[in-house]
Amino acid sequence: MNQPSQPSPARNILLRLAYDGTDFFGWQIQPDRPTIEGTVAAMVEKISGEKVRLCGSGRTDAGVHACAQAANVKLHSPIPCPNLVKALNRVLPDSIRVLSAQPVADDFHARHHAVSKFYKYRMYRAEICPPWLSRYVLPYAYPLDETAMHEAAACFQGTHDFRSFAAADQDDSEIEEDEEKSCVRTISSSELRREGEELIYTVQGNGFLRHMVRNIVGTLIEVGRGRMAVASIPQIIAACQRSAAGPTAPARGLHLVSAGYKPEALNAGSFI
Amino acid sequence: MNQPSQPSPARNILLRLAYDGTDFFGWQIQPDRPTIEGTVAAMVEKISGEKVRLCGSGRTDAGVHACAQAANVKLHSPIPCPNLVKALNRVLPDSIRVLSAQPVADDFHARHHAVSKFYKYRMYRAEICPPWLSRYVLPYAYPLDETAMHEAAACFQGTHDFRSFAAADQDDSEIEEDEEKSCVRTISSSELRREGEELIYTVQGNGFLRHMVRNIVGTLIEVGRGRMAVASIPQIIAACQRSAAGPTAPARGLHLVSAGYKPEALNAGSFI
Repeated sequence: MNQPSQPSPARNILLRLAYDGTDFFGWQIQPDRPTIEGTVAAMVEKISGEKVRLCGSGRTDAGVHACAQAANVKLHSPIPCPNLVKALNRVLPDSIRVLSAQPVADDFHARHHAVSKFYKYRMYRAEICPPWLSRYVLPYAYPLDETAMHEAAACFQGTHDFRSFAAADQDDSEIEEDEEKSCVRTISSSELRREGEELIYTVQGNGFLRHMVRNIVGTLIEVGRGRMAVASIPQIIAACQRSAAGPTAPARGLHLVSAGYKPEALNAGSFI
Repeated sequence: MNQPSQPSPARNILLRLAYDGTDFFGWQIQPDRPTIEGTVAAMVEKISGEKVRLCGSGRTDAGVHACAQAANVKLHSPIPCPNLVKALNRVLPDSIRVLSAQPVADDFHARHHAVSKFYKYRMYRAEICPPWLSRYVLPYAYPLDETAMHEAAACFQGTHDFRSFAAADQDDSEIEEDEEKSCVRTISSSELRREGEELIYTVQGNGFLRHMVRNIVGTLIEVGRGRMAVASIPQIIAACQRSAAGPTAPARGLHLVSAGYKPEALNAGSFI
């Protein structure tokens, strides 16, 4: 009866997050600078009173947006997941929304267990970009051979060593300890399409190197400008040299659409 | 031959402007604070070397957006209008775009000659408002009787004294010298419609008092919450008392869609 209450066991909770990355210094927590991870972790702490660490499916760069980033957090608080969503959305800035929270297996790790990532990159092709889109698209009104870009986009599909598209400063010392040192990734879908004035590149794969999507887009733009040939894409990939590919496209057009997991990785068993 | 060149006569130029008002202290120029008028005027000066004043079709409040605000400016510089548009868009922040520039009659005045204004107010009805919409809509997920609101919206059509919907601090001393002191306005269209998760109020009229659209929306929300009856709208209008109407809805959902002019007011004759 008068025994001290047991502390609740920690639940592992998967959060899905949407954010406008414009005003943040990227995902990863940094002292004295607003980041997505830092802001969400601070609000989880405010609600639960627990010091927590968020583990994201990957780090998004400064200015990059997310439609449904995934991150897990270990929490002792018994707050029901729907209440956690509501409580977080009440205290977070409007630029970050928690879409859902669900209990997952104790050993679930949002980065290690991610089996796919889906990104889109939005370009705006008309002369004048409406102010309400300019945070989310790269305005690009100059002529582009979109047919050539479409063909070039398809060349990225398949399993390749994408070293030519890795951030120039991505060397072994920068790679996280548990990250695969290989630059081999499998791209299952790589497509360019028009939607009104928007030219949208979508790419899905089992993983991406830092800056990889932005470097692919920068290369596609070079193809569109006629400065690189569609036929050269396989050679650019094969070169395994950053200097072979095009420049890094600006962050503002990039959106992490979602991160995919196998159902068995998520399964929290009897835990609710 | 060696005579000094004549200074170009001043052209009167009508600019159409789109802006995201979130980060500005409204339209009207203010010392030491970013405003739309102040920012655009500064950039016109930068390009032309001339000290100018912009005359807008009306002042938008802090946080209010515009799809196509109208403003005229007198300019001696002979810069062709299409070049002025391009030059301004190069130096303005992405949150303000010049959509067009056209020469108009010397006596054209964007405020005096405006014969209609068209506004929309966007509410977002789902539980979670996407971050990329939150600057442009009022998130409102609580229950609302949208049918009653729809009926109430129609009650504003016609010619009425809208004193009940004027800003509480709008007294004669605040009204601009050349502004009509009457609060009588004619509303030609006042409608509420659903577009997916958005509940959109659109209103068109020959003029609007300060805060009038936001006060109408605040009143419509009261009707939706069941705190005011549809049948009471005519009485609220007739009361000619600010306290009779609902609260002022937040600025973020309000968009000045356009300002209308008679073709003859715009006509610049032989001037190009």
